[in-house]
Amino acid sequence: MGRPFLYALAGALVLGARNALAGDGHLTGATTWLALATLLAAAKIGGEVATRVGQPAVLGELSAGILLGNLDAVGVRFFAPIAHSPEVHFAAELGVILLLFQVGLESSLAEMRRVVGTAGLVAMVGVFLPMALGVGASRLFLPAEAWSVHLFVGATLAATSVGITARVLKDLGAEKRSEARIILGAAVLDDVLGLVVLAVVAAIGVRGQMPPVGKVASIFGLASAFLVGAIAVGYFAVRGIYRSTAKFRTAGVLSVALALLFSGVAAAAGLAPIVGAFAAGLLLDEVSIRSHGSDGLQRLEAYVSPLVGLLAPIFFVRTGMSVHVAGISGRGLLLAVVLFAVAVAGKIAAGFVVGRRPSPDAEAPPDRLLIGLGMVPRGEVGLIFASTGAAIVTPKGPLLADDLTIALVLAVMATTVVVPPLLAARLRLLEGRNGASDRLP
Amino acid sequence: MGRPFLYALAGALVLGARNALAGDGHLTGATTWLALATLLAAAKIGGEVATRVGQPAVLGELSAGILLGNLDAVGVRFFAPIAHSPEVHFAAELGVILLLFQVGLESSLAEMRRVVGTAGLVAMVGVFLPMALGVGASRLFLPAEAWSVHLFVGATLAATSVGITARVLKDLGAEKRSEARIILGAAVLDDVLGLVVLAVVAAIGVRGQMPPVGKVASIFGLASAFLVGAIAVGYFAVRGIYRSTAKFRTAGVLSVALALLFSGVAAAAGLAPIVGAFAAGLLLDEVSIRSHGSDGLQRLEAYVSPLVGLLAPIFFVRTGMSVHVAGISGRGLLLAVVLFAVAVAGKIAAGFVVGRRPSPDAEAPPDRLLIGLGMVPRGEVGLIFASTGAAIVTPKGPLLADDLTIALVLAVMATTVVVPPLLAARLRLLEGRNGASDRLP
Repeated sequence: MGRPFLYALAGALVLGARNALAGDGHLTGATTWLALATLLAAAKIGGEVATRVGQPAVLGELSAGILLGNLDAVGVRFFAPIAHSPEVHFAAELGVILLLFQVGLESSLAEMRRVVGTAGLVAMVGVFLPMALGVGASRLFLPAEAWSVHLFVGATLAATSVGITARVLKDLGAEKRSEARIILGAAVLDDVLGLVVLAVVAAIGVRGQMPPVGKVASIFGLASAFLVGAIAVGYFAVRGIYRSTAKFRTAGVLSVALALLFSGVAAAAGLAPIVGAFAAGLLLDEVSIRSHGSDGLQRLEAYVSPLVGLLAPIFFVRTGMSVHVAGISGRGLLLAVVLFAVAVAGKIAAGFVVGRRPSPDAEAPPDRLLIGLGMVPRGEVGLIFASTGAAIVTPKGPLLADDLTIALVLAVMATTVVVPPLLAARLRLLEGRNGASDRLP
Repeated sequence: MGRPFLYALAGALVLGARNALAGDGHLTGATTWLALATLLAAAKIGGEVATRVGQPAVLGELSAGILLGNLDAVGVRFFAPIAHSPEVHFAAELGVILLLFQVGLESSLAEMRRVVGTAGLVAMVGVFLPMALGVGASRLFLPAEAWSVHLFVGATLAATSVGITARVLKDLGAEKRSEARIILGAAVLDDVLGLVVLAVVAAIGVRGQMPPVGKVASIFGLASAFLVGAIAVGYFAVRGIYRSTAKFRTAGVLSVALALLFSGVAAAAGLAPIVGAFAAGLLLDEVSIRSHGSDGLQRLEAYVSPLVGLLAPIFFVRTGMSVHVAGISGRGLLLAVVLFAVAVAGKIAAGFVVGRRPSPDAEAPPDRLLIGLGMVPRGEVGLIFASTGAAIVTPKGPLLADDLTIALVLAVMATTVVVPPLLAARLRLLEGRNGASDRLP
């Protein structure tokens, strides 16, 4: 299997190296296409290997990214600039937006409404417990640092990145489970809470004091207004769009335009774009099921699937490439391990606030460990928190010292990489119990 | 139909205006998604309108782009920065690469081999005749300008952009005609010739004299080596890749990776990336037909189709947005009209070098006017030539004066916009003759 790919990789390497090494940090035309070709080939090799050893494909994509991202340690400098190029960044973002749109299409607003209470509880506990544990760990290990630093460390551990979990659940055919809906709902609410937390701790970091209550309220209000408003207004507008476009040959393009519109509105409200894409998927699902039966929806999902298949792996390879294993001190590594441990513990504990009673439509009660595990990945949201903190400069220097930033990034990435195999193992156990083990590879 | 879209457009406008107007020239996260959503919606509205009045969808996409690109004349400044953002540029380029890959998949190496002689003749005449006419027109209308300027004007008219023609032929279901193969083959060879011409006239413009023969030969050699080498080496490597990946669930992603690899190699050799993508499509087609029957190919085409449907319209809307109708003088407009006329005449004449005899496999002789019309669009290739000339600074100032540059750009864009309806009309006539008029809208 590997030989032709190695040709392709070697070709990209030799031809691209000349341009990439020019050192202006921007990819040239040729390098952009070679870089994308390399990332796609690496993603597929990684995914194929992971699948063959019984793991979700996304773990292979992340691992391929980690490998490529650390090749500069052995002198191969072609890949480092790829991860930072605006073109690859854009393709990756578009990929994860389309992934969450697809996940939204497969869920429905009605299903989400049923779990909103449970999801809200999971989100609240999942934000504030890891934050409290993170603040405690930071205070214990870094007693000389200011409170603003401890708060930032805690806030970084509060984030949730739903992309990884959504991919794992899809990879393993488990996206219709009741736990999947609870995880998705909690992750969306987490994003609103996380935004408020980030605004507060960033203001404390910059000014050394709490921001005005009015400002915090307006951030919270804008984000909540997006969620409620987009869904409410969209419910009617989308119905109109879908009705008027369902007869077009290319209704799929318009549905993607809608996903991008919602992503843009979400980003303008300060939320992650993927929250908007997920909401768009929920709405389209609802409308198409009601007015056109399941046929239109199936066509739409079939349309979006190749787009996700091409672009989402770029996101996961690029995420893997941001894990730099070199350059951490012993003390930093210890801190990373501790932060990782409390990050995992805090989110798993959040899963256990879910009641043991089965929901009215589900046969079995939701698995609380599965929900907790699904909330563990911090992914790119955690990285945004950490890099926001590293970018804040106080009179005494940067808010987060280099060593602490690397420890935070490592802890965040560890939460991201460790989840796919754990989720797969847990699902295998659960499905085995229910006699449906043949669905898993 | 239009109302929900207008909502979407208005939303994008209001929300995006704040950020886009910040004036730093780079799109923010939110604006990127809103911009893409707007371009996609505009493309689909335009395409739908064009289809309903019996025109190819691509004409509607170009027209929507022209509309958006000139809205700043009436004070709407949201759209101008979109066309220049690196993200939209990247999405557009990826779209046209995938389009030519798809076109390549639908052609085969064997079919192309049969037309290579005819295509070579069309390409040669189609490069040198418009160039001679362009030099003559430039010398007649701008007697005070240097020879280097006349040569540059001529070279700009020598370019061919196959994207428009490929889309029109696909839109109208005529991509299997023998003329389509001749046009595609000639356009690929044009790209090699055009590259050499550009190198020569740019060197004359910069240094005022011919470049060393060795340099010209090496540019020609590298480009030719890509075409011959990539196809020869690829023939065997691709066979291996296809065989080893056909059993994967996601062979489609690898085929796109291959298209991007070939695009990157083509760009590194100085050719347009789409030439590489087309070659990759030709190779995959050949291999899959031989070793897997037509099933694998049909699956591959079905996989690529949604990708092209989403991204290619971004390319055409963006192309339309680069037509700025304001800001030209009367003299410049006259020059633009003359350049447009010789540009059209030169390429149509090139079509008439094709013999009247039918090819062994075709029922009717190829239509020479159709071939000539298909070669007329200069599109983005012509724009690259014009902007290269405008960027050259001589001791007496820029090589191409502002007025001349605008005239060249207008002439180039006119060749691009005028072709879709003319091709559609010609095809309708031809298909009507053959009793297959029901295929056209």
